Amino acid sequence: MEGGAESVATRIMVGVNESTIKGYPHASISSKGAFEWTLKKIVRSNTSSFKLLFLHVQVTDEDGFDDMDSIYASPDDFKTMNRRNKIRGLHLLEYFVHRCHEIGVPCEAWIKKGDPKEVILHEVKRVQPDFLVVGSRGLGPFQKVFVGTVSEFCVKHADCPVITIKRKPGEAPQDPADD
Amino acid sequence: MEGGAESVATRIMVGVNESTIKGYPHASISSKGAFEWTLKKIVRSNTSSFKLLFLHVQVTDEDGFDDMDSIYASPDDFKTMNRRNKIRGLHLLEYFVHRCHEIGVPCEAWIKKGDPKEVILHEVKRVQPDFLVVGSRGLGPFQKVFVGTVSEFCVKHADCPVITIKRKPGEAPQDPADD
Repeated sequence: MEGGAESVATRIMVGVNESTIKGYPHASISSKGAFEWTLKKIVRSNTSSFKLLFLHVQVTDEDGFDDMDSIYASPDDFKTMNRRNKIRGLHLLEYFVHRCHEIGVPCEAWIKKGDPKEVILHEVKRVQPDFLVVGSRGLGPFQKVFVGTVSEFCVKHADCPVITIKRKPGEAPQDPADD
Repeated sequence: MEGGAESVATRIMVGVNESTIKGYPHASISSKGAFEWTLKKIVRSNTSSFKLLFLHVQVTDEDGFDDMDSIYASPDDFKTMNRRNKIRGLHLLEYFVHRCHEIGVPCEAWIKKGDPKEVILHEVKRVQPDFLVVGSRGLGPFQKVFVGTVSEFCVKHADCPVITIKRKPGEAPQDPADD
């Protein structure tokens, strides 16, 4: 192993999104799965060797979230916000940042607006993580025609290695296109 | 993190192959790159948290290698073999096993014959690694038509997460289809 490399943490970008299930305003099943997989299989107890970078891409602007340049790295960062900004996207980041804080893994989290595929590619170029982890519903080819697959696009086009974590069959909701 | 999970090492399968460059009977540039990336970015100094599983698929049988069920886990395992068995595929395993031994990462290495795509898929099903690392020449779409891409096939069809490590542009040999 190269001499000085050990001192710099491995930076893992994790793409996270909200659940599509109505009345369930939390992280999607596949986002949570990808995150927990990363902790269990890569980070393990070596918490100081890694830094997690959570990117959430908000597709619509209906929430009126306008604080797009903030970076959240600790649960305290969420306390100072006013009620108007407590939107779903932010609750999502809070979930992941809180979990990392509990375990002691350094992290940063932020939100960008736009098309998830293009924004993820752009953020990879800008932030230059060591690799990208994305969840996937693990749909068959027939199902994929209707729902699109951000993960496949990232695997093909992102400027860093990408690992896709498929949702476990037992975790799929009633409609497998939901997540 | 889950209670007992820490005690079991994360098992990483690494697909390795020989260089196609004449007079250069060693690991391919992309195999070495994928291996070194795994050490530097995933294993780091946490050597006891991981176990590397090296699979080499031999496409032809011209070498007459018939000891296909052996598993190599330490440099000593290569010493007892007679001269006839000292073929290129085995030198390849010796390279990776020796390197792991130096660093202190537990490993196993073995050879299988057949079509790399099908054999890798079969071995993933049999061995059930936590994830698979494969190197790739990082060729463009026009070049790929002629040389095939084992890595893309694995990403699509393997029964575990797959991470593809592209060869760095500066490491490409004169003919980029070589490796």
